[in-house]
Formats: sequence, C-alpha cells, structure tokens
Amino acid sequence: METNLKRIKEHIEKIAEFTSTPGRGITIFSYSNEDQKVKDYLIYQMKKIGLKINIDPIGNIRARLEGINPDAPVVITGSHIDTVRFGGKFDGIAGVVGGLELLTVLVENGVKTYNPVELIVFIEEEGVNFGSALIGSKTLIGAYTVDDLKSFKNDQGISLYEVAKKTGLNPDRMSEHVLKPEEVKAMIEMHIEQSVILNLENIPVGIVEAIAGRKSVLIELQGVANHAGATPMEYRHDPLIGAAQIIMAINHIVREQALPTTVGTVGKITCKPNMPNVIPESVNFVLDLRDIDPKGIALSLESIKEKIKEVSKTHGLDFQIKILGETKPLKLSNMVKDIIEGVAREKKISYKKMNSGALHDACVLGEITEVGMIFIPSIGGRSHVMGERTNFNDIKIGCDLLLGSILKLAN
Amino acid sequence: METNLKRIKEHIEKIAEFTSTPGRGITIFSYSNEDQKVKDYLIYQMKKIGLKINIDPIGNIRARLEGINPDAPVVITGSHIDTVRFGGKFDGIAGVVGGLELLTVLVENGVKTYNPVELIVFIEEEGVNFGSALIGSKTLIGAYTVDDLKSFKNDQGISLYEVAKKTGLNPDRMSEHVLKPEEVKAMIEMHIEQSVILNLENIPVGIVEAIAGRKSVLIELQGVANHAGATPMEYRHDPLIGAAQIIMAINHIVREQALPTTVGTVGKITCKPNMPNVIPESVNFVLDLRDIDPKGIALSLESIKEKIKEVSKTHGLDFQIKILGETKPLKLSNMVKDIIEGVAREKKISYKKMNSGALHDACVLGEITEVGMIFIPSIGGRSHVMGERTNFNDIKIGCDLLLGSILKLAN
Repeated sequence: METNLKRIKEHIEKIAEFTSTPGRGITIFSYSNEDQKVKDYLIYQMKKIGLKINIDPIGNIRARLEGINPDAPVVITGSHIDTVRFGGKFDGIAGVVGGLELLTVLVENGVKTYNPVELIVFIEEEGVNFGSALIGSKTLIGAYTVDDLKSFKNDQGISLYEVAKKTGLNPDRMSEHVLKPEEVKAMIEMHIEQSVILNLENIPVGIVEAIAGRKSVLIELQGVANHAGATPMEYRHDPLIGAAQIIMAINHIVREQALPTTVGTVGKITCKPNMPNVIPESVNFVLDLRDIDPKGIALSLESIKEKIKEVSKTHGLDFQIKILGETKPLKLSNMVKDIIEGVAREKKISYKKMNSGALHDACVLGEITEVGMIFIPSIGGRSHVMGERTNFNDIKIGCDLLLGSILKLAN
Repeated sequence: METNLKRIKEHIEKIAEFTSTPGRGITIFSYSNEDQKVKDYLIYQMKKIGLKINIDPIGNIRARLEGINPDAPVVITGSHIDTVRFGGKFDGIAGVVGGLELLTVLVENGVKTYNPVELIVFIEEEGVNFGSALIGSKTLIGAYTVDDLKSFKNDQGISLYEVAKKTGLNPDRMSEHVLKPEEVKAMIEMHIEQSVILNLENIPVGIVEAIAGRKSVLIELQGVANHAGATPMEYRHDPLIGAAQIIMAINHIVREQALPTTVGTVGKITCKPNMPNVIPESVNFVLDLRDIDPKGIALSLESIKEKIKEVSKTHGLDFQIKILGETKPLKLSNMVKDIIEGVAREKKISYKKMNSGALHDACVLGEITEVGMIFIPSIGGRSHVMGERTNFNDIKIGCDLLLGSILKLAN
C-alpha cells in the first residue's frame, strides 16, 4: 500500500492556483476568498472519500475516517493551508495534502483502522494578519478564550473574532469544540523542513525529536547624533559601531561558546535618524536565540549581555536589554518517534533524526497528546518565499512514511 | 570698537521665535511663512541702519553698506537662516546676526570703509526640502541654471523654481544677478563649528584653513534569507553579519590606517526583510568618507573595498559598491586667514587653526573669490538638533573678530 505521486502533485498544484498573488508566489490568508476556495476544494475531496466533516467555530476543518471502535481516541494528522504573503506552495499545504492522500489510500484499499483517524486543516498558523501565530491549533486545545480571539487584531483594527464571524463562523461556541486529551491518542504532522540540512545531506525525511525554545531580546543602544564630517573619530559615541561589534560577538558566542544546537540571529535593525551624513543617535536590534536545550540560550545570553555592557562602556553608549518573548523547548513523543522510525526502517526509507528550529501546529498539540513530526527537504532550505521548493518524490516518501506511521498508531 | 552682546542675543532670540515647531526646536524652511517673517525682521533692522537692500530672484538677501569707492569690489559676510526640521537657533543664524551686528557697529560709529561691505543672507543652505544643499549660494555664483532650479523638487513633487515663484520671486531673471569674480574682493562666513573640538579645548574661535572633501559610497550586500530558527549557523549567508564586520573594519581603517584628518561614518543602514525571525536577505549601507587631503579618502576606500571583498567571500555574499557622490577638498584663502589671525592676535583672542568637516556657503563662494571662515564653539559638538547651543559670549568674540577682519579687508 503506497501513496499516489500523481494525485499528491495534482492537489498541491491545484491549491497553489488559488493564490491571491499569481506570478508572485502563494498568498492564502485565513478567512479570505482564497482560503474559502481552498477549503471548498479540500472538502469536495474529503466528501468524495466519505469522510465526516466538521468545521469548528474558529474555522479548523476536522475530517474523520471512522474507526472500528468509534469511541477509541482519535489518531490525528494535519497541518495548515494559510501562507505568508508571497510565500510558497509547500509550507503547510504539503502536510494537509499528505493527510488527505493517506486517508484516500486507506479508503481505496478498504482498510479499517481500530482507532478513528482525523485530518485537521488548521486555520491561521502563520500569524501574518493578526500578529500571533498558531491561533487555530491553540484555540482547538482551549488555550485561547473568546476574549483572546477578540484581542487579535489585523492592520485595520478588526479582530480575528469579527473577521471569523463575517465568514459565517460562530467563535462564541468554541468552548464546546475544544479537543480534550482523552479524545486523542496521538498526532503526526508532516511539514517541509524550512532549512538546508536534509537537502544538503540528500536525505528524503527527517524524524523530529525536539522543537527549539526561543528567546527574543530587544537591544537598544543610545549614542550621540553628530555631524559625520565635523566630528573627529575619537570624539564619537556611535551606536552603530557598537551594534556592529555586538552583532559580530553574538555570532561568535553562539558558534563558539554555546551548545552545538544553539542558533542566534539578528534579523531586524533600526537606526535613527538613518541619514548618511549624521552619526546615528540610536540603534535598536532584535536578537532571536533558539535551542532545544535551554542551557544553550542561557549560556549565550549571559555572554552577550556582558559584551553589550563592555561595548557600551567602550563607546560611551547607554543601553537597554528587553526580553520581548520566550517559548520553552519541547521534546516530542518518544513513542511516536519510535513508530515513525520503525516504519522508515521497514520501508527502507533513509532518514535523519533531527530537531526543529521552527514552531508548528504539532507543537501546540504536544500539550495534550503524544506528538511526532516528519520533515521533508526544502531545496536550498528556502521557505516563506516564492522560491520555496520540495521535490514531489520526497513528498511522496514523506506521505508513505506518514501513512505507515498513522496505520501503526491507529491499530 | 566692539560688537554689542545684548543686541546679538536679542536678534538670535527673536529669530528663534519664528520657528514653525515651537517647543520642539527651530524649524525655518526656505520660502515658508517663517522664512518670510525672519526676512521681514532682518530687512527692518537693515533698513534701520540705512543699508541698501536687494533681494535676488531666488531669494538671497543682499544688504549693502556703500563704500568710499562704490566701484571697488565688495567685501562680503553672511550665512543662512534656513534650518533642518527641529534644529537649533545658532546654525547659520549666528553668522547672519554677526554680519548685521558688525554693519550696525560700523554705522553707529560713522565708519566709512573704502570697499562696500555686503551682508548676504543665503537661502536654502540645508537642503532639507529640495534634496540638495547650498542652492542659494550656488545659484548666486551661477552654478545653477533655471532648468536646475526646476529639477530640485520637494516631497510633493513641486520644484524650487515653482515654490520660489509662488512667493513672488522671479527665478527666470537669476542670470542677470549672478555674482561675478571681479565684483568681489573677499568673503568671510562666521558659523558654529558643529563639532566638539573648540568646546573640548575651551577655545572661543577657530580659523578655518580647509574644508574636507567627501566621498559617499553605497555598499550593497546580498545574502540568502532563511528561517532564523531552522537554519544552522554553518549554513547561513547572513548579510548583516557581513555588514557588521565591514562597519567595524571601516572604523578601524579610518582610525588606524588612513590620515589623522580622515573621518568615516556609516549613518544609514537598510536591512531586508527586517523581520526578527528571518535571516536577512540583503543589507545596504552608506559610507561617508571625508578628508581635507584626498589621499586619506583614497587610502581608506582602497582598504575598505578589499575588506568588503574578503568579508563577502567568507560569508558567501554578493556585493556591489556604488559611488553616490563626491566633492573635492577646498583650501581657504591664505590672505584672508592671515588677516583673521592678525586681528585675533591684536584683540588677544585665543584661536585654533582648524579644518571643517562640513560644507558651508563660504565654500561655494570660494569658487569665485578669496574666502575665510570663523568657527565658534558648539557645546558638546551638537548641531541640527534642539540641543544645539553656543555661549553668547563666544558669539560676541566671533563677531568682534569678524568685525575687525572685514574692516581690514575693506580698507
């Protein structure tokens, strides 16, 4: 029993047609017309194979293949269909199509599992419109109240609650639809890796062991703005020189003094007044530190703080260090990982046990059930861009591994 | 014969009242209502002491005290009254008030000079509105045609030509008012230093020997955007790390490998997509290199280019280096400098011979006549900000030196 490459490809290509930015990558925002069209397409396919469909009050689609024992806890697979603006056609979508394909294969082959199997299409994973990621999965497990949904607002100041309501949903009733731990046996999400490792090492699937925790830190340096021509070098308090020194130190500390799993990135920098002929007054930048081991984050941050103090003193700068946010590392289920690994060995699929630097809906479900993840390669490690690519052959291998693993979990 | 501290202070404080941003610093844009009010005030003062006033077709005020020989070439002093947004009350204005004060003292004392003396209030020096600095002085010496004036546009796309026309000026006739070399004997501008040297060394005046040349260089680094969590450190092509390394190298090269007079600044940096959780795709920044000796600029730029190549290779980045603009260094007149120095010695004013890193209207006049400059201290070196300060006592000392020097030049 194996999945169908041609059908997987057709689904992915068809969904990509619903982008609101044709020619400039895939843009499918939650609650948009494009989102509705993708859902209509998926629901049509789900009904065709006889799944029982339930759209919850926030818009997650739950499509169920009944088990031999309908009261047994459900085995879930799924991912999301929303994208960033000008994104790619694989992020999220590959996992949704993978789930649809495995259920299709089960139905085609007349396979009845003991536990029910459910495909969930999560809404609003990317967090592009309402300032917060993973809202669909978090709401499903009861992490958000209706008031929370009213507090997530888009650029026009309209809340997710209101937007969802306008599409005919009724978020007020969400509490009746929260997924309880006793209702679920396990969950596996297949997702593109969004990094270079599998592609560079030429391995078709990754089995995820842990998800990195993250600390987001704002560093503000205040110097003295002055004339770029008239101020001698020795009299300057230039916060951009300070920032450059700290950014280089971050790179060095994360590579040489932290753990092998630690990564640190400065992706956002703001310079004021940002005029070519003025020594900057202030420079702010955001440090994103991640590790599956909290020690790596703590170790790095300690050294980085020391460096900020030292550099600020050298250049006569004032500084502030603000923690913007923090998520803890998450170990995935050993039980699910062992099952996926066993199936990979049986099917002679070469795999790599690895960690994830990115968060996914599966991580959220990890709070209530046993969770595993299958990664498939991102060519060049690129994601969230038009150039996001994954070989369809690799997607099929991932789908076969998902199929085998879900079958084991549901029997 | 000396200038009047109380009057100098009154003029400066009065002009500062005409700001369009009260409480947030001085904002006087050329051709604005505030500009007109300052001009009305100055013209009233000029008429009171019997000066002959001529406003040229672009809006420079030329106020003349006739000489014993009206046909002798004129001795000029002057500066500008326009400011940056939220600027200070001394930049430009101190020099204009100094010129008004010295003419007032001459008239009060019934002093007749052999050469006519003229105070010029230059329009549009800062270049804040029309994207180009020193337009008033450059137009006065014939460096700009009417077509040039039509090409300088503000944020609303309206040209300086049109804006000037709306205030009742007739820029089309500018060619009839161009200042010719044979009409001028010499020019001295008094201006705040806009740097820290005089203030730190506690010296009331600087005598400027040369104005630094400038090279403006755009450096573009292109890397590969990627997920900040999912991409291992060793697989990154992060242009911000590259930029940090180059910015630090610029600082080092300019301080240690160039001339003692070389300064280099990165004041503007742009990072894309500038999101905290994405390794940047590209980072662009502008290098401002200045020196009174072109060798300092050439030396630094050579080493900086080498460093850019090396850093780009290390991090796997593409780079581009574009020269955005260049002005040559300018040596001021030895004759005028000697006269100012002689007067300082006579009046027992302590002074420092120094260079200017900033450009001024005097530099433009340097293309047609003998030019000198007197600097007065900027407290903390600050300028173009609300916190711009100069002690009124120092301004008076500068005015006395200006008075003595203009008297020598005009006799």
